[in-house]
Amino acid sequence: MPRGRAAAAAAFVCLGILRGQAPVPGDGPRYTPEGMLVKPEYREWVFLGSGLGMTYGPAAGGEPRFDNVFVSPSAYRRFVETGRWPDGTVFVLEVRLAESKGSINQGGHYQAGVAAVEVHVKDEKRFPSKWGFFAFPENAATARVIPPGANCYSCHEQHGAVDTTFVQFYPTVSKAAKDKGTYQER
Amino acid sequence: MPRGRAAAAAAFVCLGILRGQAPVPGDGPRYTPEGMLVKPEYREWVFLGSGLGMTYGPAAGGEPRFDNVFVSPSAYRRFVETGRWPDGTVFVLEVRLAESKGSINQGGHYQAGVAAVEVHVKDEKRFPSKWGFFAFPENAATARVIPPGANCYSCHEQHGAVDTTFVQFYPTVSKAAKDKGTYQER
Repeated sequence: MPRGRAAAAAAFVCLGILRGQAPVPGDGPRYTPEGMLVKPEYREWVFLGSGLGMTYGPAAGGEPRFDNVFVSPSAYRRFVETGRWPDGTVFVLEVRLAESKGSINQGGHYQAGVAAVEVHVKDEKRFPSKWGFFAFPENAATARVIPPGANCYSCHEQHGAVDTTFVQFYPTVSKAAKDKGTYQER
Repeated sequence: MPRGRAAAAAAFVCLGILRGQAPVPGDGPRYTPEGMLVKPEYREWVFLGSGLGMTYGPAAGGEPRFDNVFVSPSAYRRFVETGRWPDGTVFVLEVRLAESKGSINQGGHYQAGVAAVEVHVKDEKRFPSKWGFFAFPENAATARVIPPGANCYSCHEQHGAVDTTFVQFYPTVSKAAKDKGTYQER
């Protein structure tokens, strides 16, 4: 390849990355040789929304907790374009303790330490229903998939607005799904 | 430059970007020729934390709102390394309405539409106290700086744990500040 063309090709790749047009390498699911999911490095992923004390049944009692939901950047960008989650999408639910009194804060709640991390992965070849759930014990670097009969699968399948995901609670992406016709009222 | 060296240099730049080691171009403040701040494209920025119904004085009454705080990725990475916000840091406070009953949710709160967007910029040459505050009216693409005498400046200066920012409410970065010795109990 002539020098000019090689440089132009490299520049094209760089520009694509900078503009967010190219898929982000490395934000898909990673597994150990034994099939355990490696805990994603999600701190810089796209924030979809948060809840405080949300409950799908009778109130659990006790101090409410925050639920922060993040998604892998390449999946977010694809969803905004198409209203669909691509194969390799990774969701992270980060549950955080809530505090009320601290520093100058007098009321309401703010976020404190992480109480739990759960992950929802779309991997069409690996999981019978295309999606797998994982719960990471504290300080665990890997987790085994939760078996398909568990409640999380049936609840997400019955109530998720888009492809077993709770897009109805993520205002950052619900409009894209409605615009693209992939949103189901649930 | 010989062809091989040019290609190697381009590859080095790309790899740096992919690994998040290079500063992220384009996430610093941008201004119009008249000195108005252009509203940042913050949807994929780093989420620092959220609050619901937080108040620094008597409770305001009415439905509580969520406060989501995001920071520019290059500033986040520098802060994790050093405990300090670099020149060019941009914070976004996104205030969202809260809803309680919807779909299968029976209690607690989840996030709905954006009620307000406020921005805090570190630009040492431009602002007398190094930082400037901006409030974006609904659908506004630009905003004028809030004058230095406003409450936001004095409150952040008196009560912010790190360099006029409320790191005490952002568990994602407070540990870095404590480890680096830049955190003040406030």
